[in-house]
Amino acid sequence: MESEVEINKKNKPLVGIIMGSDSDLKVMNQASEFLDKNHVPYEMQIVSAHRTPELMFEYAKSTKKRGLRVIIAGAGGSAHLPGMIASLTTLPVIGVPIESHNLKGIDSLLSIVQMPTGIPVACVAINGSINAAILACQILALSSKNISTYVEEYRKNLHHSVIKKRERMNKK
Amino acid sequence: MESEVEINKKNKPLVGIIMGSDSDLKVMNQASEFLDKNHVPYEMQIVSAHRTPELMFEYAKSTKKRGLRVIIAGAGGSAHLPGMIASLTTLPVIGVPIESHNLKGIDSLLSIVQMPTGIPVACVAINGSINAAILACQILALSSKNISTYVEEYRKNLHHSVIKKRERMNKK
Amino acid sequence: MESEVEINKKNKPLVGIIMGSDSDLKVMNQASEFLDKNHVPYEMQIVSAHRTPELMFEYAKSTKKRGLRVIIAGAGGSAHLPGMIASLTTLPVIGVPIESHNLKGIDSLLSIVQMPTGIPVACVAINGSINAAILACQILALSSKNISTYVEEYRKNLHHSVIKKRERMNKK
Amino acid sequence: MESEVEINKKNKPLVGIIMGSDSDLKVMNQASEFLDKNHVPYEMQIVSAHRTPELMFEYAKSTKKRGLRVIIAGAGGSAHLPGMIASLTTLPVIGVPIESHNLKGIDSLLSIVQMPTGIPVACVAINGSINAAILACQILALSSKNISTYVEEYRKNLHHSVIKKRERMNKK
Amino acid sequence: MESEVEINKKNKPLVGIIMGSDSDLKVMNQASEFLDKNHVPYEMQIVSAHRTPELMFEYAKSTKKRGLRVIIAGAGGSAHLPGMIASLTTLPVIGVPIESHNLKGIDSLLSIVQMPTGIPVACVAINGSINAAILACQILALSSKNISTYVEEYRKNLHHSVIKKRERMNKK
Amino acid sequence: MESEVEINKKNKPLVGIIMGSDSDLKVMNQASEFLDKNHVPYEMQIVSAHRTPELMFEYAKSTKKRGLRVIIAGAGGSAHLPGMIASLTTLPVIGVPIESHNLKGIDSLLSIVQMPTGIPVACVAINGSINAAILACQILALSSKNISTYVEEYRKNLHHSVIKKRERMNKK
Amino acid sequence: MESEVEINKKNKPLVGIIMGSDSDLKVMNQASEFLDKNHVPYEMQIVSAHRTPELMFEYAKSTKKRGLRVIIAGAGGSAHLPGMIASLTTLPVIGVPIESHNLKGIDSLLSIVQMPTGIPVACVAINGSINAAILACQILALSSKNISTYVEEYRKNLHHSVIKKRERMNKK
Amino acid sequence: MESEVEINKKNKPLVGIIMGSDSDLKVMNQASEFLDKNHVPYEMQIVSAHRTPELMFEYAKSTKKRGLRVIIAGAGGSAHLPGMIASLTTLPVIGVPIESHNLKGIDSLLSIVQMPTGIPVACVAINGSINAAILACQILALSSKNISTYVEEYRKNLHHSVIKKRERMNKK
Repeated sequence: MESEVEINKKNKPLVGIIMGSDSDLKVMNQASEFLDKNHVPYEMQIVSAHRTPELMFEYAKSTKKRGLRVIIAGAGGSAHLPGMIASLTTLPVIGVPIESHNLKGIDSLLSIVQMPTGIPVACVAINGSINAAILACQILALSSKNISTYVEEYRKNLHHSVIKKRERMNKK
Repeated sequence: MESEVEINKKNKPLVGIIMGSDSDLKVMNQASEFLDKNHVPYEMQIVSAHRTPELMFEYAKSTKKRGLRVIIAGAGGSAHLPGMIASLTTLPVIGVPIESHNLKGIDSLLSIVQMPTGIPVACVAINGSINAAILACQILALSSKNISTYVEEYRKNLHHSVIKKRERMNKK
Repeated sequence: MESEVEINKKNKPLVGIIMGSDSDLKVMNQASEFLDKNHVPYEMQIVSAHRTPELMFEYAKSTKKRGLRVIIAGAGGSAHLPGMIASLTTLPVIGVPIESHNLKGIDSLLSIVQMPTGIPVACVAINGSINAAILACQILALSSKNISTYVEEYRKNLHHSVIKKRERMNKK
Repeated sequence: MESEVEINKKNKPLVGIIMGSDSDLKVMNQASEFLDKNHVPYEMQIVSAHRTPELMFEYAKSTKKRGLRVIIAGAGGSAHLPGMIASLTTLPVIGVPIESHNLKGIDSLLSIVQMPTGIPVACVAINGSINAAILACQILALSSKNISTYVEEYRKNLHHSVIKKRERMNKK
Repeated sequence: MESEVEINKKNKPLVGIIMGSDSDLKVMNQASEFLDKNHVPYEMQIVSAHRTPELMFEYAKSTKKRGLRVIIAGAGGSAHLPGMIASLTTLPVIGVPIESHNLKGIDSLLSIVQMPTGIPVACVAINGSINAAILACQILALSSKNISTYVEEYRKNLHHSVIKKRERMNKK
Repeated sequence: MESEVEINKKNKPLVGIIMGSDSDLKVMNQASEFLDKNHVPYEMQIVSAHRTPELMFEYAKSTKKRGLRVIIAGAGGSAHLPGMIASLTTLPVIGVPIESHNLKGIDSLLSIVQMPTGIPVACVAINGSINAAILACQILALSSKNISTYVEEYRKNLHHSVIKKRERMNKK
Repeated sequence: MESEVEINKKNKPLVGIIMGSDSDLKVMNQASEFLDKNHVPYEMQIVSAHRTPELMFEYAKSTKKRGLRVIIAGAGGSAHLPGMIASLTTLPVIGVPIESHNLKGIDSLLSIVQMPTGIPVACVAINGSINAAILACQILALSSKNISTYVEEYRKNLHHSVIKKRERMNKK
Repeated sequence: MESEVEINKKNKPLVGIIMGSDSDLKVMNQASEFLDKNHVPYEMQIVSAHRTPELMFEYAKSTKKRGLRVIIAGAGGSAHLPGMIASLTTLPVIGVPIESHNLKGIDSLLSIVQMPTGIPVACVAINGSINAAILACQILALSSKNISTYVEEYRKNLHHSVIKKRERMNKK
């Protein structure tokens, strides 16, 4: 396992954020912004399971070698990207079901979550890319004190923001 | 295009029937039995999108070269097989959503049918493997007089079987 | 089977695009535009299963004689058109579930895809008329070198358009 | 309009019960048994929208001429029979969604009930063939004193059977 | 049974259109407009199953005595109005599921259509009030030559309007 | 408000358990058994919204006068009973959606829970009649020390039964 | 049990309205406005099951001691707040499923209503916060004459408002 | 971070498997069996969010201190356990939706996966406890060579088992 120091020095991406189409970018950017704020190095790419299957294969096969530790994959409709990536690497893959136009993401959700025995995908809520980023951090935090600190701080801030809203409400 | 004669002589498979797991065999056998009855050469294999992704890639890439003309792919749950095969070949791919234990195949259906623009899958009913075989024959019939004849005969028999049931009912 | 030459000379329609109502035109036009771009001759008509059933019968019965090889039928709600056409011809019928106002097309999808054994419809995604056109081309490509070439080129372009978006994204 | 007397003398069927397959017979027999008990003449036939479309056309076109007044049509899955009959006659058509194996009849229900403007089908509950028969009687009762009497009596018996169960329960 | 003449002279309402709330008026007005155009006398009222249950009881009990022959009841959400009216009269009751804000009318549809054995409601499509009016006319047409003529003419016009749209499309 | 003493002396029912059909008895008996165990007086009756609407009216109108304080109403399919009772009394009404054969109670649930503004029903889980009884006790506990004691004890036992299962598991 | 007088003098809150997020405020304010109009003292707070679990614990544990008698909890998506509060107090808890962006509240509804045996939540319609307030009043009315009077008056006004709309409609 | 050696010596549990009820044991045992086979130390306990909320709080709060690194939580219906644990610890929490009797686990799935921003749960398929265990191992493998080796071996075996089934099929 890489030491904490090495991670900070090299600043090599630890999280790979991928999506099947640039129409998913609006949702997936929320994940990259979260990682930016918490100083977690990542890469973000368009990789389509259906339109660039060979590229997806290469990408998935390269992830571990290149030092990535968690993959976040967003996809909508027949959302095959997270599951296919998961079948091609043993890194943890977090799937983000993107809201689809007609079925509002219930198709994306079922395509991502109902994986067969042997190849898990960690599915989060429809359009839940921020939670995907948090989950990635929680996983990375198991072997990084820095990220662990960020995760704990984020949780505290979450708590405080509710407390503040609460107080503001009580004053009215 | 291969001539009718050549097809009959070589008896090379025209239809590739694949499925992700041997638990799908009971349903998919109905497709192979239909093709057997109608003298359409086919091959049948287990190819798992998730458990053997490389094999799936090779299989899909080989289909056209080996003379296959239509692929029938059955899959359940996060049913990625038909869509992934469709992304790796330009042959028509017919998807058969296999009934899943909990969600009764609505997950399989949505995973297969809701494909993104560019990569179509021809989806049939849940467990509709016989219809997948018939559809394959209807496609092959466009360039084979023999298969065209089988298709027309099947349709007539279908009509007659209803007429007979009808008569039997009226006699009661 | 008609030869390639004959197809090009006569320019007779090979694909019949039909829909139940002119409100479906916006979606179905995407299919005709695709065929136009790829030089595949087609015809486009309004044929309502419910409002003009006799016309639908005549239309379906005439398709094969007039040289059509694939039918694309779009319909919404109680979407009976694709299934009824499929029951009246042995040509491959591709069904396009049109998004319905209240149920967003899940009714159209189930009406089209859940066909009984004997009469298949090749169902694509809700509002998936472009994919219906691509699938029609993939079927025609089995017996036409020209169309086969178009299909392969389209697939390559699809691949390249993702690669370009990918590069643009990486530059940012 | 035929007089009450004429109806009783000739005993010509007033209700046409049809279904797409003999597998629907178990459910649809409950409709015929209800009509038998209430002395309403009917005919019962297998007419498949998909497997015998021409026959369905002839049947639908003949209904009015032969003196039928209400049609009860049962169908499952892509349940096109009630809607297609309704498109071919102006008699009231009652649709019975038959429970389907995988989707438990929600597909049948949506296929039958979501008819487009202009061609109504009177849809009853999934497997609700008895209610279809009662509804047919309620419609016929508008122009037949006998049937009106049966309908009122049935309603009273329904009331009494609940009262009896109620009393039996209270005694315990 | 009242003679045709009597109906025309008195102009007493034959159809009762009711709804639970004035928010349903926009949808239900389409039913009354259809009846207006086809010279079928009707009455239209707000009767809420939940907010005015006694009134609903009185209304339902009075329908038959006052000469009504068909009831059209629109309701949304926990749509109890059609079923409760049906339980209080033996006239045919047509239920119109009104689109609900959150569940888009699937709740209204299931509440109306899934009636228990003994008390049928003739359910039409979500927001299908025009079809409810047509169905009412088809029922009334069984005992009224005038209404029968209107029904046949409407059907012809429906056919012609599709033919015209078809021709306009072909000219382009 | 009646004093605790009076309640115990008279033993007049405080909870009315009703259901539309004796087929609901198996589920609803679990509610009465819970009340029996906790010494809460109740009555249990069959009252059908659809088959005995007048009786339902009388029943609902009598509830308050006869000293009932909470109504538990179980119903399946087009489950109108809880909502109609709620429209006829201002006592709190708890609705129990009974599992239906085809749609597994999702129809019952939506029919009961989606009540319009003004007439609430307190809906519990599908077949959740025990929880309906507990909820009734929690409501009664607000004005009865005895019932309050039972409610607290039940909660403690619930806690202990989990602790015991936990310990048994740990021993293995 | 506190006497009526005491309640009025102290004006201590009887109802606790809580919600997981200030985005739920728009819906939940309708509950507080109803209680305001009917002079029922309440408190309203933000308490998040997920973001402030300890606070939620404290809140739930304090409810009974502080004299609250009914809790109204609104929550959307994975709506755990009502169920968790119900697990931590024996006061009746009314759950309000808040409409979620993608799944329109069907997720909120199922999360709230499908509680396990032992811990009931009284679920109302999606966004049904007014009904939650009315239900709270109906429960409080069992031990408060004032609130009982308000409840009866509200019901009468509800009835009258429908009658007025009815009359206005008839005049047109 | 603990070194590999330390983990092996102490054999302290790294994974906490919890479930709300012993009825979930049949499904959750599949997770513990997987961890047993792969020599990953774990603990398994019954912790009910609803029936033992305080215990759940204590459990969740203790997880990190006691050296657990991943939590697997199975729950059905209103499945609050995974989300509540996730709100009380920053360890990664994997949720397993347990099949529910009526709604077949779609309620469990939505309750678990649709978590609000800030508190992610990694959801797997309905009854997907084996995949939960594999995902836990994939997460642990990021900081344990042993577990990483097991994960890679499992994946290879998965691949080989499909290849063997494939060969067996081809021999027939």
